[in-house]
Amino acid sequence: MKFVIIGGDAAGMSAASRAKRKDPQMDVTVLERTMDVSYSACGMPYNIADPGRNMDDLIVRKAEVFREKNKINLLTGHRVDNIDRDAKRVSGVTFDNQEFSYSYDKLLIATGAVPAIPEIPGANLPGVMALKSLEQGRAIKAYISSNGIKKAVIIGMGYIGLEMCEALRARDIDVTMVKPGPTFLPWMTPTLADVVKKELEDNQVNLLCGCNITKIEPGRDRALTIHCQAANGKGDKEQEISEAGEKKLDAGMVIVASGVIPCSDIAIAAGIETGIQNAISVDRTLKTSDENIYAAGDCADAYHVVTGKKCWIPLALRANRAGWAVADTVCGAETELQGVAGTAVFKVFDLQVARTGLSMKEALDAGFDAVEETVQTRSKAHGHPGAGTIHVSMVGDRKSGRLLGVQMVGKDGVAHRINAPAVALHAKMSVADFIQTDLAYAPPFGPVWDPVLTAANQLVKLI
Amino acid sequence: MKFVIIGGDAAGMSAASRAKRKDPQMDVTVLERTMDVSYSACGMPYNIADPGRNMDDLIVRKAEVFREKNKINLLTGHRVDNIDRDAKRVSGVTFDNQEFSYSYDKLLIATGAVPAIPEIPGANLPGVMALKSLEQGRAIKAYISSNGIKKAVIIGMGYIGLEMCEALRARDIDVTMVKPGPTFLPWMTPTLADVVKKELEDNQVNLLCGCNITKIEPGRDRALTIHCQAANGKGDKEQEISEAGEKKLDAGMVIVASGVIPCSDIAIAAGIETGIQNAISVDRTLKTSDENIYAAGDCADAYHVVTGKKCWIPLALRANRAGWAVADTVCGAETELQGVAGTAVFKVFDLQVARTGLSMKEALDAGFDAVEETVQTRSKAHGHPGAGTIHVSMVGDRKSGRLLGVQMVGKDGVAHRINAPAVALHAKMSVADFIQTDLAYAPPFGPVWDPVLTAANQLVKLI
Repeated sequence: MKFVIIGGDAAGMSAASRAKRKDPQMDVTVLERTMDVSYSACGMPYNIADPGRNMDDLIVRKAEVFREKNKINLLTGHRVDNIDRDAKRVSGVTFDNQEFSYSYDKLLIATGAVPAIPEIPGANLPGVMALKSLEQGRAIKAYISSNGIKKAVIIGMGYIGLEMCEALRARDIDVTMVKPGPTFLPWMTPTLADVVKKELEDNQVNLLCGCNITKIEPGRDRALTIHCQAANGKGDKEQEISEAGEKKLDAGMVIVASGVIPCSDIAIAAGIETGIQNAISVDRTLKTSDENIYAAGDCADAYHVVTGKKCWIPLALRANRAGWAVADTVCGAETELQGVAGTAVFKVFDLQVARTGLSMKEALDAGFDAVEETVQTRSKAHGHPGAGTIHVSMVGDRKSGRLLGVQMVGKDGVAHRINAPAVALHAKMSVADFIQTDLAYAPPFGPVWDPVLTAANQLVKLI
Repeated sequence: MKFVIIGGDAAGMSAASRAKRKDPQMDVTVLERTMDVSYSACGMPYNIADPGRNMDDLIVRKAEVFREKNKINLLTGHRVDNIDRDAKRVSGVTFDNQEFSYSYDKLLIATGAVPAIPEIPGANLPGVMALKSLEQGRAIKAYISSNGIKKAVIIGMGYIGLEMCEALRARDIDVTMVKPGPTFLPWMTPTLADVVKKELEDNQVNLLCGCNITKIEPGRDRALTIHCQAANGKGDKEQEISEAGEKKLDAGMVIVASGVIPCSDIAIAAGIETGIQNAISVDRTLKTSDENIYAAGDCADAYHVVTGKKCWIPLALRANRAGWAVADTVCGAETELQGVAGTAVFKVFDLQVARTGLSMKEALDAGFDAVEETVQTRSKAHGHPGAGTIHVSMVGDRKSGRLLGVQMVGKDGVAHRINAPAVALHAKMSVADFIQTDLAYAPPFGPVWDPVLTAANQLVKLI
């Protein structure tokens, strides 16, 4: 059995390792475009924040180990350009321009996602940088040090933009964040989004929502001038630009963090079906429209456990899990994944921001008779010192009574608290049943009624 | 409708407040033995730890507020001694020896639990103290200060004993903990119990397992001499006493923390059925064997969501929840509680110790074909600084595949992590389904595979 994997990050290396563990005789080849495999991509902003840390600390396992210990035929610097489905063969060129081609019995496409680069004149200037691969992480970190960056503009205000914002502020760099959409964290309920926005402002981050970048111009000494324009005049109150009409920002670097797009080009070229947001369509066994080809990780779609419909939510745990599932299936134990709940957490300065399931808007869009309740609770018991505030927003379905989603913001005790409602979403629990769950209590860790239970106690009144 | 409640702590005051909120016309009387109502009993050890804090900070709502704002006929210093079920009337005496009697249509017994005081000669000496009521908390705190306590012995090594141990060490008091049983934290899997034991030893706590206290003798200046003897020679290696045969400990005070027993005496005297550990037997609506009498809180039993059988696990959240449920039922909306999972967390020095569901022994005793797996994982992502170790033990049923219980110990990220498996227990999830849950990941908060998923990934191999 020849098992060929395109892409050596989370999904690809998980699949390769597991396949060799389950079937040491299997011929497993991984073709990775870059020179890096198996690193903690999500750790890059935190590494960039600290000039004393080496970016290679993020490498979980070195390529040599995969080759020597796991006996995986791991080929870095191998860019696959073509999948010949009839011949069951992939081909491409190496970093030193050698052509290669490999035949497969089963193929896994684990090509991940790449940053969406907006078409802005000047987007290819030195100092305009995106963060996805370890190579890009190294480049950003080196650029900050070697150019003594003091000011930066971040395009986009998603997870990566916010994490990079914190990283740059930790290095005492002035940060302005810019996005075309009028609303800061549009997927978040406004009360909670305001808490996050305030945390950014308290950390001297300048936010420009509803603002297009029209061009980036080079100046002296690698300085950049970023030209902004109000986007349809729909910016919210933070949008200084909408009053001024146009604005120029000076910065030493620009981080492009306007989201990612699935790397599905070679799949599309080979006639493999794609769907939502151009991600590769897979069934619950991660199989594509070609029965010998699987897709896993950020390039593939998934079923959402709440809606039952396809979604594209590229996150690390799913990638690892999907890699394992494909390996199990290829090794003969067909494995299905139930789906994703879109559970995510990020840190922005002292705040923990977490979500699982559907937002109010997503729930309405999916056809639920959705209602939402937002509560504020203390993070520790009454009378216990050092308590902060936890904001919880919970969405339920009036018709079925089901819990649909939770969002949470606070300075302590948010990150792991989101997992209880995440499990409830998998179990398709009603809000009324969730209220009955026996959660842990001790004064240093929370109030008697956990914040998620307090939110559910309020929400159930609306259902 | 006359709704009478015996006991003004978590269950009693929750029921009273909710009943008046739902039905402002209802005649609600609360008869509380002590002078305190509605305080955070679990917060007392943390308050005792800090001489600068007032014990009254733990009072959530004052008696006057319940009387004036909530219009509850709240009578403190009223000890109920008798329930006349035929006449539907309770009677007793007040703190100033006045007899009283009240008739009821519905009665709630919410008398809580009291510390089990072992029958030891000298147990009634000044300086031998237990912690349950706020009055007892005040007394302990005052005794430490006014007697300049430097050494203490704690009898018992359960939650309260361990929390008191930390509180006393915070006040620089030497602590020796003594228990008759040979095993430290017998409900905990040994690997994890050893981690907790080491934390205590690192904080200079002297542990004597397998050791009976035979008598306590008074000395000069309120000093106490505690006489210990090996208990059946079964002590483990920590048991210095088993070699010495007998041992004398000197201390300024003795804290009795050898567990609690339900306050079911007046219920028993009235012929109301009790069951497991003498707790009052209730159905899922908290109704006792008398259809007009309910019981809630630490005096009542509960169904366990994993075994489906009766259990007695006195914890604060259940008490609050049961109080509400009784109020709802009494107000006409019959409400059932699904049961408890025994989810609990406590802090001991820098460690967080949590559990939910069944231990391996409890699972075997309950007739499951139980298997257990224990893993060690990092508390943060690979390459993220400041990570500690999280130890997770997970129990599953080989026959049904069900998740049965989880225990966890670590310095960060344990307290709220236990809630995800707790919800899974309510949903009667299999280990295989739990593995599929989409939990949150970000490098500052954990590895890609959450520790509970890593444990489940290992456990499923045994199922």
